[in-house]
Amino acid sequence: MKVIIIGAVATGLSAAYQVRRHLPEAVVTVLEKQEDISYGACGFPYFIEGLIREEKSLIARDKARVLQDGIDLRTGWEVTAVDVQKKTVTAKVAGEDALQQLPYDRLVIAVGGKSKRIAGLAGMKGVFPLNTLQDAREIKAFIETRKPKSAVVIGGGNKGVELLEALIHRKISARLVEYLPRILGFYDEEVSRLLLERLQKEGHALHTGEKVLQGKTDQEGYVTAILTDRGEYPAELVIETVGVEPNTDFLEGTGINREKGAIITDLYGRTNVKDVYAGGDCAMIYNALEGRNIYMPLGTNANKAGKLIGLAIAGIEPGFRGSQVSSMVRCFGYELGRSGVNDDAAAALGWVTDSVLVRTKNKSSYYPGSQEMYVKLTYLKEDGKLVGAQVFGPEGTALRIQGLAVAIYAGLKVQDLEYLDFGYIPPLNSPWDSINVAAGKATAKMKRK
Amino acid sequence: MKVIIIGAVATGLSAAYQVRRHLPEAVVTVLEKQEDISYGACGFPYFIEGLIREEKSLIARDKARVLQDGIDLRTGWEVTAVDVQKKTVTAKVAGEDALQQLPYDRLVIAVGGKSKRIAGLAGMKGVFPLNTLQDAREIKAFIETRKPKSAVVIGGGNKGVELLEALIHRKISARLVEYLPRILGFYDEEVSRLLLERLQKEGHALHTGEKVLQGKTDQEGYVTAILTDRGEYPAELVIETVGVEPNTDFLEGTGINREKGAIITDLYGRTNVKDVYAGGDCAMIYNALEGRNIYMPLGTNANKAGKLIGLAIAGIEPGFRGSQVSSMVRCFGYELGRSGVNDDAAAALGWVTDSVLVRTKNKSSYYPGSQEMYVKLTYLKEDGKLVGAQVFGPEGTALRIQGLAVAIYAGLKVQDLEYLDFGYIPPLNSPWDSINVAAGKATAKMKRK
Repeated sequence: MKVIIIGAVATGLSAAYQVRRHLPEAVVTVLEKQEDISYGACGFPYFIEGLIREEKSLIARDKARVLQDGIDLRTGWEVTAVDVQKKTVTAKVAGEDALQQLPYDRLVIAVGGKSKRIAGLAGMKGVFPLNTLQDAREIKAFIETRKPKSAVVIGGGNKGVELLEALIHRKISARLVEYLPRILGFYDEEVSRLLLERLQKEGHALHTGEKVLQGKTDQEGYVTAILTDRGEYPAELVIETVGVEPNTDFLEGTGINREKGAIITDLYGRTNVKDVYAGGDCAMIYNALEGRNIYMPLGTNANKAGKLIGLAIAGIEPGFRGSQVSSMVRCFGYELGRSGVNDDAAAALGWVTDSVLVRTKNKSSYYPGSQEMYVKLTYLKEDGKLVGAQVFGPEGTALRIQGLAVAIYAGLKVQDLEYLDFGYIPPLNSPWDSINVAAGKATAKMKRK
Repeated sequence: MKVIIIGAVATGLSAAYQVRRHLPEAVVTVLEKQEDISYGACGFPYFIEGLIREEKSLIARDKARVLQDGIDLRTGWEVTAVDVQKKTVTAKVAGEDALQQLPYDRLVIAVGGKSKRIAGLAGMKGVFPLNTLQDAREIKAFIETRKPKSAVVIGGGNKGVELLEALIHRKISARLVEYLPRILGFYDEEVSRLLLERLQKEGHALHTGEKVLQGKTDQEGYVTAILTDRGEYPAELVIETVGVEPNTDFLEGTGINREKGAIITDLYGRTNVKDVYAGGDCAMIYNALEGRNIYMPLGTNANKAGKLIGLAIAGIEPGFRGSQVSSMVRCFGYELGRSGVNDDAAAALGWVTDSVLVRTKNKSSYYPGSQEMYVKLTYLKEDGKLVGAQVFGPEGTALRIQGLAVAIYAGLKVQDLEYLDFGYIPPLNSPWDSINVAAGKATAKMKRK
């Protein structure tokens, strides 16, 4: 069996290794247009910051290792077309004029996504997206050679706030501009605000509800400032992180179903076309809680998708139920975590929910260094079933989403969580864990109605 | 309604406040033999260490506050007898000769427990138990006035290892002696050993399988050394933490059922005797997983028991299913957490289990400061149902038991945990969370059989 995998980052290589392991006789060919492979994109902000010094630290497996593991990895191969009838892919190979054509028995599309770009900044030097290791490398080199004094990060998602911190730590006067009314749009406004207000109070420049229109450049074409619908800000460096969209234009006309570019798959990464699989940032993923596919380009989803596709090709269907949009973020010593649906998503689904947002402590109140933390629980009004959770607090807080993620997965109710036995030590919590406390408030609120 | 509560620490006051809240017309009298009330016993090691400077930090509510909240709190009242037919308690009041007798409609026994003591050390100065705030105060004063150079902590449970660290941090040459073959006996040997070996390698003196026989004293009666079945160790201070037993001798002949002194109750703290409730370190607690009562004196259990008793008196039965022996401990920068049954407990119950112990990292491997952590999962061989979990690693690791505690509560299988969506950021985990990894190993192990 010939398996062709397009893409050699998280999804592609995970799939390749699973096929390698479970179908030893298969020929596994991985085509990657970049020279870089197998990098951890979630580490880019730390690499740009200088916290991760060596580029190679970000690389899980190098090319030599992958080849040695029996995977026919070809970098510099950009797939330009797929013929699902003839079962071939056509690729442009770096340094070659003629296109190459390869036949497949199974095809895996794991080409990832790319940042949306702002038209008004096109072509300016010093303006970067941050999708690939090459992007991260260029940003870092730009910082080290041009030594920009000012920067604007466009987009207030996880990557945006992490980048803001990275740049500030590099002594660059950086600000963040977000088009939507709040940063971290997957959190509820009241949770997002907990972070925003603290960062602003600490003197960081974060603008919400503000639209970047264009940039100014110097005579050499280097960006010097950003113009928004509300003002002008110095910016010798601009990083755009305004959302990801799938890299799937080359699939036009193949009959592979997509939604806003994202490939539609089943739980195990199968597309509507026989023997064609897809996963990671170029595809949708099934949301277990909502019972529908969503586009949610996260590292966790990309890794899981790769493994599931590899297993599916080998005829194995493990106990995956879908994503539940669990996510964590840390910046400036604060952390947030979320899982399940937020209020907006619940409303959009027509669910009748209620919620509590409870302030507790991250350690026993008597333990030195005890700080405020917050737990938000969103639950069905009818029976208390937990459908969403968000946490905010100092470093270490994001881990607290894990118990809540399991509770959501298992369909537990807030009534279950009020007395659940979480364990206790003064440096980490209180005899009544913060989740117990929040669930207790929710239970009491339910009774009052 | 007259409610008498014996004991004003975690269980007693929790019960008192619940009754106060839900039955405003009840007369709530709390009798406490000590002068100290409402202290957080889990903070004692940190208080002795000096990390918590102020004694009052350990006190959740002082006497004035409790009285102000409408609770008839009487300190210096030691209950010496209970008459469950006449529904009275008899108490000896500090400074009074005549005994007092009080009638009750509902009685709550929350008298706590006390350390077992070693006969060979009886009467020696510088030898302390650590049950009460007064004990902690005396130990701290002893350290500050006598300035002991050497110490022995007897008992290697949570409190023992925490105390060892506290004394070492106070520059006292301290060692720990444990009678059983391992420290932290509620963990499996292979997990317990992870801590033991590291601490020993770091130069700390921890002895297991060694029995303390007696002590040596100077002419003034101060302890100078400890003699065990294997050696003699200098010890100008000795703290005994060799296990807790219930303070229930005064109930002899009342007909209140006990097992090894611990009062037997139902899920809501009701004893076999009408209108008599009990909870905390003087009582057993229902173990949800094992389906039977156990004696497990933990702060979490004591707090829950108090609330549940208060609610039961008010006729409310919330969604409590029992303890699952979730517990955390931190010492010398390491943390452990556990929930459910360990291998010994599973075997004793006749359960056919298997387990995996997996070494992972507490951060993404590329993130600075990433360290080893371990996850152990114990599951039913038949279907993979998770029945126990243990974690070991650097600070912050114990929180990782929370997701596993929820999984055990919910009856999830390792197959569920292999793909469960936990969220991810490089400073806290990897795209495949440690729990995913451990569950994956367990699932693979199940398939091989």
